[in-house]
Parts: sequence; C-alpha cells; structure tokens
Amino acid sequence: MKTLFAIDPWKLTETELHRDDMRLSESLTSTGNAHMGARGNFEEKYSGDSHPGTYFAGVWFPDKTRVGWWKNGYPEYFGKVPNAPAILEIGAAVNGEELDLARNEVAAFRRELDMERGLLARQFTVRLAGGEARCETERFFSAARPEILAIRYRVTPSFDAEVAFTPAVDANVRNEDSNYGGSFWQPLGEGAEGERSWLLSQTKENPFGTPRFTVCCAFSCGGGEPGFAQGRAQRAVKRTVRAGETAELVKLVAVATSRDFETDDALKAHTLAALGAAERAGYDALRAEQAAVWRERWDRMDVVIEKDPAAQQGIHFNLFQLLSTYDGSDPRLNIGPKGFTGEKYGGATYWDTEMFCLPMVLSTLGEGAAKALLRYRYDQLPQAMANAEKLGCAGALYPMVTFTGDECHNEWEITFEEIHRNAAIFYAVWYVYTYTGDKEYLAQYGMPVMLEICRYWVSRASWQPRKRKYMILGVTGPNEYENNVSNNWYTNRMAKFCLETFCELAQDVTGILCLKERGLDGRELAQFARAAKHMYLPQERDGLCEQQDGFFDKELRAADTLDPAERPLNQHWSWDRILRSCFIKQADVLQGMYCLRHLYSDEVIRRNFLYYEPMTVHESSLSPCVHAILAAQVGESGKAMEMYARTARLDLDNVNNDTCDGLHVTSMCGSWMAIVKGFAGMRTETGVLAFAPCAPEAFGPFSFRILYQERRIQFSLRDGRFTLELLDGAPLLMLVYNECILLRREEPVTHEVK
Amino acid sequence: MKTLFAIDPWKLTETELHRDDMRLSESLTSTGNAHMGARGNFEEKYSGDSHPGTYFAGVWFPDKTRVGWWKNGYPEYFGKVPNAPAILEIGAAVNGEELDLARNEVAAFRRELDMERGLLARQFTVRLAGGEARCETERFFSAARPEILAIRYRVTPSFDAEVAFTPAVDANVRNEDSNYGGSFWQPLGEGAEGERSWLLSQTKENPFGTPRFTVCCAFSCGGGEPGFAQGRAQRAVKRTVRAGETAELVKLVAVATSRDFETDDALKAHTLAALGAAERAGYDALRAEQAAVWRERWDRMDVVIEKDPAAQQGIHFNLFQLLSTYDGSDPRLNIGPKGFTGEKYGGATYWDTEMFCLPMVLSTLGEGAAKALLRYRYDQLPQAMANAEKLGCAGALYPMVTFTGDECHNEWEITFEEIHRNAAIFYAVWYVYTYTGDKEYLAQYGMPVMLEICRYWVSRASWQPRKRKYMILGVTGPNEYENNVSNNWYTNRMAKFCLETFCELAQDVTGILCLKERGLDGRELAQFARAAKHMYLPQERDGLCEQQDGFFDKELRAADTLDPAERPLNQHWSWDRILRSCFIKQADVLQGMYCLRHLYSDEVIRRNFLYYEPMTVHESSLSPCVHAILAAQVGESGKAMEMYARTARLDLDNVNNDTCDGLHVTSMCGSWMAIVKGFAGMRTETGVLAFAPCAPEAFGPFSFRILYQERRIQFSLRDGRFTLELLDGAPLLMLVYNECILLRREEPVTHEVK
Repeated sequence: MKTLFAIDPWKLTETELHRDDMRLSESLTSTGNAHMGARGNFEEKYSGDSHPGTYFAGVWFPDKTRVGWWKNGYPEYFGKVPNAPAILEIGAAVNGEELDLARNEVAAFRRELDMERGLLARQFTVRLAGGEARCETERFFSAARPEILAIRYRVTPSFDAEVAFTPAVDANVRNEDSNYGGSFWQPLGEGAEGERSWLLSQTKENPFGTPRFTVCCAFSCGGGEPGFAQGRAQRAVKRTVRAGETAELVKLVAVATSRDFETDDALKAHTLAALGAAERAGYDALRAEQAAVWRERWDRMDVVIEKDPAAQQGIHFNLFQLLSTYDGSDPRLNIGPKGFTGEKYGGATYWDTEMFCLPMVLSTLGEGAAKALLRYRYDQLPQAMANAEKLGCAGALYPMVTFTGDECHNEWEITFEEIHRNAAIFYAVWYVYTYTGDKEYLAQYGMPVMLEICRYWVSRASWQPRKRKYMILGVTGPNEYENNVSNNWYTNRMAKFCLETFCELAQDVTGILCLKERGLDGRELAQFARAAKHMYLPQERDGLCEQQDGFFDKELRAADTLDPAERPLNQHWSWDRILRSCFIKQADVLQGMYCLRHLYSDEVIRRNFLYYEPMTVHESSLSPCVHAILAAQVGESGKAMEMYARTARLDLDNVNNDTCDGLHVTSMCGSWMAIVKGFAGMRTETGVLAFAPCAPEAFGPFSFRILYQERRIQFSLRDGRFTLELLDGAPLLMLVYNECILLRREEPVTHEVK
Repeated sequence: MKTLFAIDPWKLTETELHRDDMRLSESLTSTGNAHMGARGNFEEKYSGDSHPGTYFAGVWFPDKTRVGWWKNGYPEYFGKVPNAPAILEIGAAVNGEELDLARNEVAAFRRELDMERGLLARQFTVRLAGGEARCETERFFSAARPEILAIRYRVTPSFDAEVAFTPAVDANVRNEDSNYGGSFWQPLGEGAEGERSWLLSQTKENPFGTPRFTVCCAFSCGGGEPGFAQGRAQRAVKRTVRAGETAELVKLVAVATSRDFETDDALKAHTLAALGAAERAGYDALRAEQAAVWRERWDRMDVVIEKDPAAQQGIHFNLFQLLSTYDGSDPRLNIGPKGFTGEKYGGATYWDTEMFCLPMVLSTLGEGAAKALLRYRYDQLPQAMANAEKLGCAGALYPMVTFTGDECHNEWEITFEEIHRNAAIFYAVWYVYTYTGDKEYLAQYGMPVMLEICRYWVSRASWQPRKRKYMILGVTGPNEYENNVSNNWYTNRMAKFCLETFCELAQDVTGILCLKERGLDGRELAQFARAAKHMYLPQERDGLCEQQDGFFDKELRAADTLDPAERPLNQHWSWDRILRSCFIKQADVLQGMYCLRHLYSDEVIRRNFLYYEPMTVHESSLSPCVHAILAAQVGESGKAMEMYARTARLDLDNVNNDTCDGLHVTSMCGSWMAIVKGFAGMRTETGVLAFAPCAPEAFGPFSFRILYQERRIQFSLRDGRFTLELLDGAPLLMLVYNECILLRREEPVTHEVK
C-alpha cells in the first residue's frame, strides 16, 4: 500500500518529486487516446530509475519464447506490444545546463493528471548555476484526433539565459521484458520536410511468419535545426530570454502505422497530413477539442459518488484509464491488461476482456464497442479451432493470451489447462445478446463461436462410467492458486451453462440454420444436452459447492490467520505451498455464482460466500470486484465496502505493490461493475433490465448513467430511495426488484431501497 | 528404434560411416575413466553434424536459470557440466589435403568399441587427390591413471606423401544447452615446456557465489612445432612417408583440475608430471595397463548370458559405461544421468543414483563406493535442510538436481513437488545398512539423514480431521505424467516406510544417542510413529492401490490401444492431455511394490502389476527394469523378457529415440538389477542374503558375481538348476527361496529353480 497522489475527485496531484517511486508515479500518470499512449515519463532527460514506455495500439512483436523446459504444444513466440519509438522527448537546457530532475536541485515540483479534461501537466522549479528556472509542461493524446500528441513546454529562468530545446522522436528503444535482451525495431529512415521531421521504423523480421509493422512518427515545433541519427530525428531550438521571461516550445507529434496503410509512402503522407492539420489548428484549439471530447464522455458515463472523494477519485481514474485505452472503434483491437501503461502481460488479449470489461463497455461505450470486442473473437475462430485440434480436442479453444488468435502463453498449467476462458467468451456473447436482444448479431457472429465452444466442452469432458457423470479432468480454474485439478466447480458449471444455453438458443434463434454449414445436427444437439445434464459438479452440502475434487481435504484456515509478513503469498511462499494450501487467489466458485446469479438463490450465494471469501487472499486484481458485488447482494456491507475500496483504488493505493509495472486496466472495469451490477443491482440476464439496489449504507449517495437498447438511463440513489430516469429513447418496461415498471422520458420513477 | 552397431558380446562395431546418425554413434562410442570422458567424436576435423563433448568429473558451471514465468523459490542457476576443453583433437592432412570424413570420399570405415579392453578404435580409408590413405586410430582414457588419455593415430597413404598432424587442446568450446548462448570458459594461459604443451582454462566468473574451476590440459606427441592462440595450444608435426609406409602419431594428454590442487602452479606441475610419467611408460605399456585393469574388473563383476548375444552385449555395454563414469573413489562425485556422454541433465545428481545405481554399485564396486554415494548426501544435509526451510517445511528436502546440494531444477511440479526423492535417499541408506550390516556407518552418516527426512515428512503431511488421516497433498510421484496430485500412493507409502523404519532403527541402533544433538526426543519419535500409523493410502480393493486420489476416475485404457503414430506420447501430445490420461510414464505404485516387496505378497504385487503395467508407456528409461523385476516375480515371463530387452538395450537400439543426446547411464544399472534382483531373485532387505530365482526360461543360462560382506559370491543358473559358490571370504548363512543354507568356500550349493 502506498498512496502518492492526493485525494481529489477529478485530479491526481503529486506535490513532491518521488525519485524512489518514479515508476509508480509514471504508471499512475499514464495517458492515451486508444490509438496510442504513454506512461507519465518526463519529456526532458531523466537519468534516474524510470520505466520509459510508449505504445501504439495493435502494433506487436513476436518475442521468441523463453522457457525452462519445453512442453509439446507450446507456442514458439510470446507476442508483446513493443515499447514504441519515443515521441515524448523534449530535451531542455538553460545556458548549457541540462534539465534532469534526477540530478538538478529541485526547489518545487508538482505533477497533475486532470482527468476531467484529459491533460497531464507538471510545474517545477530547479536551481541552476545562474539561478532558478521555473518550468511548466502540459501534454495530451488527442481524444479528437487519434494520430496526435501535443506537448507544450515552458521554461522561465530567473536570469537572462539561452534556453535550448531538443524535441525528438527516437526508435532506439528496448523492452525491459525482452526475453533475450534483443531490440524489436529497425530503422527504415528519417528525414525532414520543411518544419516537419519524420522517422520511419519497422518491427524486426521474425521467423514465425507473423506480420511486421511500420510506424511513422512525425513532429514539428515551429522551426529548429533538424538533426538525425540512425533511428532518430531531432530538432534544435534556441530561445534567448531575459530574466523572468518564458521560453515556450510546442511539439506536435503525429503517429500512424502500417495497420492502416498499404505503402510506406501512403503512411508517411497521411502522418504528415495529420500533423499539418494539427499545426493549422494550433495547440490551444487542440486543447479545447480535448476538453470538449472529455466533457461529452463524462456526461455520457460519469459515476458520481457524493460523499466519498477517495471512492469518487477511484472510479474517475478507472473510467479515465479505460477510455484512454479502448474506444471500440477498431475490431482488430482489444484491451490489454495494462493498456498503454506498461509492458507486463505484453499488451495482449486475456479473458479479462470478456469477463470484466465487456459489461462496462456495453453500458458506457455502447453496443457498437461491445460487438467490436465479440467480433474480435469471431474473427479469430479459425485459430481457436486449430488450437483445440493441436491439443487433441474438437471445436475451439480460445487462447489464454493472444494478438492474432494464436496462443502466446507458455505455462502448461495455464496455456493448456485454464480452459474456463472459453466459458467467458461464450458468456460474453450471451450477455451482449440478453442485453441488446440482437438476434441477428447473435446468429451471425455469436452462434458459430458458441457452437465451437460447446464442441470443445464435449470433447474435453470424459465419461466416468462408474459414477455415470461427465468429468473435466486436469484444469486450472480462475483461482490460479490451484493447478491441474479435476472437476473444478466453476469450469464444469460454466461448461454445463454453455451447453444448456446453446441448446435453448438453438430452439429459438432462426439463425440456427446457418450452423448447418458447420455440420450441426440434432444428434449433436442431443449430445450437448446429455453432457449438460450429466455434468459432474463436485459435492454440495447445504448448497456448498466444492471448489474442485479434494478441496475439502485441505487444511482449511481463514486468510486472516496468516502472518501479515508472509503476504502477498505469491511473493513469499513457494508455489507448491500455495497450491496445497486452501488459499484462493481470486473468485472461483464465487465467480460462477456471480455469472449465474440469476440461477442461484441469495441463500446459496451467501453460504458459498461465507465459506470461500474468508480463504480468499485477493492476490489477483480481478478478485475484489466480484466479491464486492456478491457481498452487497448477500448483505455483507462491511465486506462490500472493503472490496469496493480495494477494486476502485487498487492502483491509486498500490494495493498489490506492483503498480510500478503499469496499471491494472482491465481490472478497473471492476469498480464500475461493483457500483452498477453490485450496489445498484443491475440485472440484464433474463433479457429484461432490472435494478435491485443493495448498496452498503456507508457508501452514501451515488448516481450513474448507462446506455441500454438505444436509451440513456440515469440511476441515482440517495437517503434510502433511488430514482430511475429515462434521458433518451423509447419507453421501457423494466423491473425494480421484482416489480414491473414502465419508464418514460420526463417521468422519473422513484423507489425505496429494500 | 535404430541399431547401428552389430551384435557381439564384447564389441560395438560399425562398418559404415553413418553421417546422418553421427550423434547417435558418438553417444554409443563414449568412453571415460571416471575422472574424465568424451563422446566418440573423431580426432580429426569433422565438418558435418556432430555433437562434440568432453567432460571432466566434478567440474561444473552455474548457468543462469532460463524460465518463462518465475515462481518464488526457483533457483537462480542450473548447474551444468561444461563441455570441457577439447583434448581429443588431432588434425590430419595428407599432402595438404585435410582429413574430414564429412567431405572426403570414404572407401571403407570401421569403428569399434572394445569393451573387454576399454579401447575405442577406427580404421578407415579415404580417397584423396594422390590416391588412397588408410587411417587407424585408437584411444583410451586410462583406467589405471585417471589423468591420462592416450591416442594413437596412423596414416598410411598409397602414395609418397607428407602427412601433417596437428594435435591440440582447445578451450574455445561451448555447450549446446547454454541457456543464453554464452560460453563457460575463459583462457588463463597456454605455453610449452620442451615437448609438452599446456593450457590453463578457468570457468567464467558467476554471480551466484559458486566455486570456479581451473583445469590444466597438457599434451605431448614426441616433438612438433608448438603454436598457440587464445585458449588453444597445438603442435605441428610433419612426417614424410613413402607409398605404403605409415606415419604414426601418439598423443598423450594429461588433465587435472583445481578440485585437487590449491594453486595453479601445483595444478600445472602435477599435470606435467603425470604426462611425463605416461611418456616414460609409453603407449604400448599404457595400453597393456588398460587391458589389465579391465580384465580385473570383468573378472570381478561380469554377467554372462550364454545364449543371447544381444542381451549379453546389452549388459556388457551397461557395465562398461557405468565403470567409465563412476568408480566410487571420490565422495564429492556422483553419477550423472548421462555420465560423460552428453550435456542433457547437466551431469548433475538425480534420485537415479540412490534408486537405480546404488544396488549395483554396492554389489559390484563394493561397500566403499556405495558409502561414498551415501556420504555425498550426508555432506549435503545442511543444504537439504535449507531447502526444506525455504519451502516452509522442517527437516531436509534433498534437491531434485544438484551439484553442491543446492537445488538447480526449475519446474515447480518437479522442483517443489517431486518430493519422493527424499524417500529414495532414505531407502538407499537403509538398503546399504541391511546389505552390509554396518551399524556404525548407519549411526554416523545414515541416521542424521534419515532423521531430517522424517522431520520433513511430518511437516509436509497435513492432518485431515474428518478422515482422521495424514495426507500429503500436491505432489508429483515417480510417474511424471501426473503433476500436483494428492496422496500419491508411492509417496505416502514410502513416507510411511521411512517413519516406521526410523522408529524401528531408533530402538536398535546404539548410535541413536548422537541424534540427541539434533534434538530428537521421545515425543518426536512418537509423532513419527503416529504419522506412520495414520498415513492415508488411497483406496485399495483386492489389494489394488490407487495411484493417487482420483486416478480411478480417469478414462482407463491400455497403452496398446494407442495409435503407434502418437508414441512416444511426450513427443506428440500436449502436456494437459498426457496429464489427464491414465497413461503412466514409469513405475509408480509398482515402484513402491518393488522397493517394499518384502512387505507385499506375490498376489498383491501381481494384482497391481496386471492393473498398472498395461497403462504404462515406459517413456522414462528408468521404467522397464522395475517392470522386468516384478514381471519375473509374478510369473509374467513374456513381459519380463520384453522389459529386460528394453532396459538392457535401451541405448544400443535407441529405443526412446534420444540416445543422440547421450547415454542413459543411470538407467543402465537397471539391466543389472533386472538380472540380479529380478531373474536371480536376490534379496537382502531383511539383513540376510537370499536368492529366489524366477528367470524366464527363454533367458537361458546366466551367471554373475557379487560382493557381499567381504565375500565374493558367484551365482550361475542353467537348465532349471542354479549354483551358488563362495569364491572368497567367510562361510555365510543365507536363504535359497525360504530355505536356509550354509555357503562355504569350495562347497558350491546347487538347487532346483522353483
């Protein structure tokens, strides 16, 4: 736990330079515009410990797999978002004395991320040989113009001085997580056209047959002497100022990639054109555009928590970072667990997207963005089928970690065994369908995915003749502190759900006809139904579900009996000790109860919650949100508050002591889910929008807006009552608790909280 | 399966050059003298595919761990025997035309390993520009002089020619298995003194605090012009010969290491002195010494199989390779799974030693050698205790793979979970004790190891209150095709054996007093007894032991229903598929039945054998021998023969298709065990020597000699009768089947085979 930034609803403000926590500060001040993004690295040189990181969406590199002991079926490479050519850089020197906050004497320092307007700024004062110099920087990745980064850099010396700026773009960068220490870029060329300098770089050749990417980075700064080195373009700008006068430099950068252009010429032309358009607009207009786009976003999706500024800051930060990472405009993209904020997890796609991000994307960015995420998996169905075949199964097994649909991860217990990811994808399709009611989309892009997932389940399960049950042996469930277990309740239960649901949808959706092309027939459907019916679910006593075969044989202890010095366990215990212990990394049985809460009574959920939560150490960032939701539902208000705080402020408070590596972007959606699906009790699984608020009283008044079937709906809760208001769209028949209401424009419905 | 060498009781003979199988031939023609050894690489240049390998016993290098995903508790390095400075090299050219069998036109080729005399020879004829040249090479690592390698190289051109020899020693070598492609050696210097050239090399500095090794390689060849490069010393020798005359070069090499000398000067002086002594003896005398030592060895331990030359060749090859690898003279050394024949497994110590090699070492090399192996573990007890502590347990957990007692391996399912290795070490101490009756050795070097192993078991087991049993959760048994299972029968049974046996010995051995220093008291002994009594052993029906919790839930199939194209499974199936299948890599329950066969009836062993063997794919080289022993015992003659052939000729027939990487040296002891402990039914576990022969009839007459408590005993079997003969030593009361006999010198006892 460490909190560097002051509590404030809209801002992250740091008022001293934390040289020893630079990586943490950099992570927290990451910014982006879904097209690209960067950590909060300083523009000027910083020679201290730091983790430079700039990332361009969809550009990745296949880094040769590093493995201790090769297993048959491992992928040959691990895809990574390469640290992209550095575009932030603006070297600065005053009378030849270089600015470098690791070495300069710093008289004052302030860094501020303005989430309301999407701006990152610093003000600092350094003591130099000639006196003090006050500096101000401000930058933003334009939310209005995906190609554009704008930076304004001001230096005000207290003495007559020559201020030298050296803005640059530079492809001589490396990934810290490069498996064999290699670099991922090769320079293709650099040059200048008038006041614009440009740099073309390409990802290196690879032996895996995956595509290479070329990126063009162009910048201008209103003149300056161009200079070049291999893979680097810079300009030297000198300003002579009197004491107290300000030297200002505006650097505009445009970035485009070969993902969108066929030829290098077209790529370069587009980049320079985008840069030209930004120049013509000018910094102030770009800044005004930025604020306007963010205003519209907040208006659409803000979550307001009135009495708890820490909680408010948490949800704002989470919404801000999600929007900086993904906007749903490009179905080739997905949401990496760290977004544009670090190298860890390689920027690839995980089940996080479907299980944790999709509900929020659907309700805030809208159907289009959510469908783009589903489309991503639909487009990768052939690779998922090839993956299943490679592992000796039918149907499709989606990869654990991927860019192109091909598996990247290489731990057998995860790559081969964490197969519940398939259920998350099925569930997401179903969730979007029940939310939107869009049968056409379901039939065209959903059912083929669902069919192949069901085929996988049937081939992966084995029939146990003595017990007359289908079993799923040798898996890792969501709780990764168990590996290679048999009959993980969550996996089996979700497989059963997939098979049952598919059989239901197959009766109902006319689009089922198209599945004939995929060879579906009545016999196979009957097989699905049989497997669903006879799926083995580990022992239940009083509704208590056993996490997997043998879990009840463990030495059962509550997590609060652990020595605090040994936590987090994953930093102190050897793996075998973690595995044989009862301690749970993240919701497992409870993840299933959350997904299928329309099928379980509050009593059963409560029984399982009270059994499993005390053994849960929440060492996955994906854990607290699910527990917050269920805790609220079963009336465990204190636990709900604790879990909400943990999910909403996970990074702001550096709860897991790893935010220095980057932000937990996908987990961030969890705080939205905790409020909307948990505290407000929003349900959509039966095809009807429903609210059943159960927020802890201590949470205080809160409100939010969602998009639902071409409507905007506002929910607000205060003093034991809540109000639903239709802001836009047609009247809606919906449920409040189990009571039917008709929601119309300008006729808010108010109801007591039960 | 591939057999390159002709069947012959005493020789491996290859009569054509197998360029495509060079690595396989090289492995099979490896030679060594326990101090050093080398693969069967050619002396002259060979530019084709080849795997050069020379190894010096006890010299190792800590190669930085390569791992995909770090787990807490992994070791920082993996120790490896580095490919040592090349000492075989003798470049040869005729009239300037270089000999290189990858390129020369080869008119004839013969390679022969003479196991009876310990010589490796080649005769080959190449067609050169001037005509043919007939070449003969012969070499041996001296069994009489550990420092010495002797090579004789003869070239007989069919034309007048100048033959140029370039013998050399060269430290510019690398390991193929270097984790990051680095080299492990740095040159310290090279020089010549008179007709002797020398090279000093040191293993590179490492950040892990492990010792570095310096080696001195000196050679002479009766003159020649010395030449040097960094890390290389050579001599140029020219001989002018008439057509049909022979140019001969004898290269004598001496090698010593800093393991035995304090200073580089002393090391060099010793090396040169050893070389000088060898020179004074001369090649022919050295060769005669070599034959004499091998004659004595064969006289002491030969196993004769009269009617099956393939089986005879197999056991000779296995005995030859074991003697080339280990002689028991240095308790700092152990037996690497590949000996001096390849890089795989890093030349380190595995449980193979105690479980598979020790019985043969004890009966053929004698008590001293076996005790040296036990002493190795005793000396490493502190590291094993530190390892247990690191993993959160009491007592000692011996490493899976080690040089110094520190763990090197980094797969959690093996490093942390394959804890049955501890039982093998306990069992070995007990085996040597029951064989030798040496209570003093047991008390001093055995019991401390046994005590700390028992402490580990007790702390590693967990109490299951509902079932009132101790359980051992999260382990990998000997069958590595199951990972992270609970209550592996073998592990639990052996833990129970350790605890019970310790309690028994503690009553009996006076040396128990010394354990007071280690804090042993009656309370702890009672705890051991309680844990032994209540140890959980998975379900038994009709004596059938369940391999682990849940094994009976698997889809059970015999291995012969597998598609042969999918075997070996580990080269075709993904790991999860292997894990969830019923297929067994190597004896697991049956390994326990083998170890504890004095405690199980033939009926129970038969029941388990018939259940598990059909599911066993024998993809570990350690598997067939145990099955051969049990098959013979339970009367499955056909299976016993099949398993014997597989263990005895594993490498000669390249059964597992991996002999190219090196020989399965530790498994080789299995064929001796199959004959002596299996077919002849030798038992010693009760403290009395017993034989109960049960050889398959088809195996025919066989005989062997063993050392037993300062006696030499000969066993021979022919035509349904077997004879025991005391060759040396005091009369012995022993058992034949269950009948007591007194064996005296010159009074052989003959008995019917039952």
